[in-house]
Amino acid sequence: MKISSFIFGNPLKTENLVLERLDKVKALAVFSSDILSSVAYATEAVFLSLGIVLSMSFPIPIALTISGLLFIIICSYWQTLRAYPNGGGAFAVAKNNLGEFCGLITAASLSVDYILTVAVSLSAGTFAIVSAFPSLSNHVVGICITVLSIIAIANLRGTRSAAGVLALPTYGFISMIFLMIVIGFFMPEGTPKFVISEEKQIPESVTILLVLRAFASGCAALTGIESIAGGVASFKKPQYKNARITLVCMGLILSSMFVGITYLAHKFCIVPNYSETVLSQIAKTVFGDNIFYYVVQFLTAGILFMAVNTSFAGFPRLAGVLAKEKYIPTRFAHLGDRLAYSNGIIALAIVAFLLIVFFKGQTQLLLPLYALGVFTSFTLSQAGMFRFLCKEKGPHWKIKAAISAFGSVATFVTLLIIVESKFLDGAWMVLILIPTLFFSFRKINRKYTETNKELDLKSGGVSELLIQKENFHPKVVVPVSRLHRGTLKALKFAQSLSDDVTAVVVNVDSAETERLKLVWRSMNFSVPLVILGSPYRSVVNPFLDFLFEQDERDPEKGKAIVVMSSFVPGAFWQNILHNQTARIFKNGMLYRKQESEQTRVIVEIPYQMKLGR
Amino acid sequence: MKISSFIFGNPLKTENLVLERLDKVKALAVFSSDILSSVAYATEAVFLSLGIVLSMSFPIPIALTISGLLFIIICSYWQTLRAYPNGGGAFAVAKNNLGEFCGLITAASLSVDYILTVAVSLSAGTFAIVSAFPSLSNHVVGICITVLSIIAIANLRGTRSAAGVLALPTYGFISMIFLMIVIGFFMPEGTPKFVISEEKQIPESVTILLVLRAFASGCAALTGIESIAGGVASFKKPQYKNARITLVCMGLILSSMFVGITYLAHKFCIVPNYSETVLSQIAKTVFGDNIFYYVVQFLTAGILFMAVNTSFAGFPRLAGVLAKEKYIPTRFAHLGDRLAYSNGIIALAIVAFLLIVFFKGQTQLLLPLYALGVFTSFTLSQAGMFRFLCKEKGPHWKIKAAISAFGSVATFVTLLIIVESKFLDGAWMVLILIPTLFFSFRKINRKYTETNKELDLKSGGVSELLIQKENFHPKVVVPVSRLHRGTLKALKFAQSLSDDVTAVVVNVDSAETERLKLVWRSMNFSVPLVILGSPYRSVVNPFLDFLFEQDERDPEKGKAIVVMSSFVPGAFWQNILHNQTARIFKNGMLYRKQESEQTRVIVEIPYQMKLGR
Repeated sequence: MKISSFIFGNPLKTENLVLERLDKVKALAVFSSDILSSVAYATEAVFLSLGIVLSMSFPIPIALTISGLLFIIICSYWQTLRAYPNGGGAFAVAKNNLGEFCGLITAASLSVDYILTVAVSLSAGTFAIVSAFPSLSNHVVGICITVLSIIAIANLRGTRSAAGVLALPTYGFISMIFLMIVIGFFMPEGTPKFVISEEKQIPESVTILLVLRAFASGCAALTGIESIAGGVASFKKPQYKNARITLVCMGLILSSMFVGITYLAHKFCIVPNYSETVLSQIAKTVFGDNIFYYVVQFLTAGILFMAVNTSFAGFPRLAGVLAKEKYIPTRFAHLGDRLAYSNGIIALAIVAFLLIVFFKGQTQLLLPLYALGVFTSFTLSQAGMFRFLCKEKGPHWKIKAAISAFGSVATFVTLLIIVESKFLDGAWMVLILIPTLFFSFRKINRKYTETNKELDLKSGGVSELLIQKENFHPKVVVPVSRLHRGTLKALKFAQSLSDDVTAVVVNVDSAETERLKLVWRSMNFSVPLVILGSPYRSVVNPFLDFLFEQDERDPEKGKAIVVMSSFVPGAFWQNILHNQTARIFKNGMLYRKQESEQTRVIVEIPYQMKLGR
Repeated sequence: MKISSFIFGNPLKTENLVLERLDKVKALAVFSSDILSSVAYATEAVFLSLGIVLSMSFPIPIALTISGLLFIIICSYWQTLRAYPNGGGAFAVAKNNLGEFCGLITAASLSVDYILTVAVSLSAGTFAIVSAFPSLSNHVVGICITVLSIIAIANLRGTRSAAGVLALPTYGFISMIFLMIVIGFFMPEGTPKFVISEEKQIPESVTILLVLRAFASGCAALTGIESIAGGVASFKKPQYKNARITLVCMGLILSSMFVGITYLAHKFCIVPNYSETVLSQIAKTVFGDNIFYYVVQFLTAGILFMAVNTSFAGFPRLAGVLAKEKYIPTRFAHLGDRLAYSNGIIALAIVAFLLIVFFKGQTQLLLPLYALGVFTSFTLSQAGMFRFLCKEKGPHWKIKAAISAFGSVATFVTLLIIVESKFLDGAWMVLILIPTLFFSFRKINRKYTETNKELDLKSGGVSELLIQKENFHPKVVVPVSRLHRGTLKALKFAQSLSDDVTAVVVNVDSAETERLKLVWRSMNFSVPLVILGSPYRSVVNPFLDFLFEQDERDPEKGKAIVVMSSFVPGAFWQNILHNQTARIFKNGMLYRKQESEQTRVIVEIPYQMKLGR
């Protein structure tokens, strides 16, 4: 207990749950780490997809196209921020306007996105560190997992007021990148490391394919923009206006950084490789191998790890919403000791851990999986806004709806490009995962609904549950295997319930049974002992057969009540020493398919051993 | 269920448990696979320990010394076979004559030995196959695990009458090895692959060390001899006499094969390497690369895999004996559906699997761990025989006791040599493992004894368990969170028990609690509903505090009885959807340290949902 409270902190009272209000400067730091951090890998992804030959001419147009797409999305979100000031984000927008189906698809995409943000950002942050210190390159997975654990524990502690801490690396990162772009702008061009001969010209059809593929890869830069929509509630008033200004600033900063970095990479003829990031190569070219370079690398790692933190805030909140609407187990809606959604945090950490171990911490392997989920949720949430605006018919609704519709179509086209060009690279996994999640959500929800219906008092049949006190002379069956203080307690309780008590032993070990018969006789019990044979050494089946026989005797007394002694060892590990016959009986009675056991009363009388190791 | 009965067979009745009686020919096949198979690796181990220079002169003397040791052990076991005709082996001998301490050390050593036999024999058998087919060398672990699974499943099926099947590879292996030795004897000598220069002479002290080390390695040849002592009961009558003859035959065959193979390896100047076994090299030299060679390799693999099977028969039987004497959890003594000790078989398979994966199927890495356990049990069982013979004082007891004493001392000295020369190679692991097992056995036994004492009716305090029917007006507390058919069933049962019923709700979600209050009022219950506050969102602690308050009210009514509704979903997976409040309450009541709950009655009323996915 002490270790746990040292690591996770002491429990907090419910009344401590207050929301910190953020001004625009702090809000930018909190919400932008996810999206800004993506410049650390987006340029690299574009260059990798283009290959050496095409990266001579195409990167900058691609970066500009992606920036254009960014502003279309921003215009659409501009409207969402006002329409949904309480947050809830894409899931709420899609579900309220497009129905459960689209809502759940959005929720599934967002979940995948949050999980992949954690994995991708951790890998990329670690790659930034390893680029600066190549000697660490054998410890990529170790570094990833250490950082993951620290962030998960910090979130389980429920650290609030972290905005101040977050501001430093975010603004530091923005400043250093802009400084780098400005200096780089005035530096001489690099010389290509490879000379392209005439024969190496690529046919036009392949070129189109590769450019589309590079565009799809670069769209990873746009992931994270949705996080601001989920957090409008935490802005200072006027909330949606402040959120809008922050959103536009974010967009401007992102697009200029992305285009700037791509420009420099092109200018310096940088070739991506698996031991150093593109950003690291640019920084080294601009600043040289000195303290400035290391500052850039550390800030890059810092902002990427903060993006991980953003997902650790976002995913448990989404899971909480889904759990409250009963699409996932309700325990995800419970606030833990420290007022954090602990179950969501732990689930996210475990899945991310498995992904990192499985992909051995290689960012580029995870990227194809990434943009797909994000663009699915973009498309659906903007389509939802379109429906919303058409229904509302507020001032200028036609223009607004047109913007959302255009945004939705643009992101949908991008989605198709991503699916088409990244399918074999791993996007198929996401295309399996999202429907799987969708059907699980539905299945769980249906099950909760069914259960509630079945348990509901209005569904009738209540009378069969009622036992009249004056008519309470039940048949009681007590299974025993040995006569000890535990079974005695059960027998005595059974006798106080009724005069019609039968003790039953299943004869598996005939020596034991003989001993029991002797003791029984010597104790002069008024309760008869019935011995059941068991040719196959099962204890459960002969007992159940006997029980059903008993049910049929004197039907006016109802079903036989079972009173069992269950043995509770003094420490948890000692459970392996005991056979838990009571649990086996209970499961046997409850899951034997022949009949419903809804009206059977099973009384378990635990006997607690002295506590001790 | 159908898949399970297809793989493991249909359940068998207890009366089918009959022992097959073996004649000497079959018995040799059944019991000798373990010991004879060790010639497949023992010579190799000697050569590896000696190194190239010393293997010019020492292997044959070492092999002869080990053969001498073998006959000392056989003389000692000769007596054991008569003294313990019911089997039980080393554990029974050591425990009965030297007390619990030595008995448990023996049991621990034997357990380690059985586990290592499985791992070493599997690896060595696979090595024999890979030597013949080098292209399989990347699949060593895969082959090991496949064979392990087949053997484990066969044993779970409880295949009896296997002696006929076993005879073929055993006698085939013996014939082929003798054929190889005879042909090899008449072949010309090989030429050394390395010429030793004068400077490479090794100093005398190092020579002694290496020779001792090689002796220790070669002792792996003797492992498995104890298996016959555990199986005297399965011989045809006169049992011990037949067993004795089989034992001596085994010894003669083993020693001639071991010396013969060592002689050939020396004669052909064979150098061990990691891609082909020594036995494979000899067979190739003698027979050439033809069908005879492949037959030798397959028979070698076959007899090694049969040695694995021997352990799968021996270990579960030992575990069964230990479980009956309550040194390990009693479930190891239960006969499964197919009359096999399933739990012991499964446990052995899991541990062997882990060892193989961890050591990547490399025999030589496991060998140092191996001989240590065997020689510990040799020493102790022979010391036990010495004590036994001294007590018995039968005819010629002095001579007999002297033989056992000499055997015990000889194996003890060998044990010291093994510890000394193999300590750093991994024997230290066994030296940690054996005491760990020993203390676990003791701890478990003590815990069972304590439990029995505490549960015993004679230990007094029985009267406090008794509830007189006429005085049975208990206080009943029913925790509820929502009013549904399950809680209603519990409430009604509570009302039929007593007039003093209180329903309790812990206010974690105030909206839920308000709803409950409304429903309660509308149902016109005679049971009062108490609402408990919970600042830290815990449901258990406020409830327990209330319960203890209730205990103190009207003490003549005894402790309050708790009646809980517990929710049983229609399929196992649905447990994740529900919070199992009943289980949390129960654990809270039972494990809260302040007080013993031995006299509390907890009634659990399960409510079974409709069965379904």
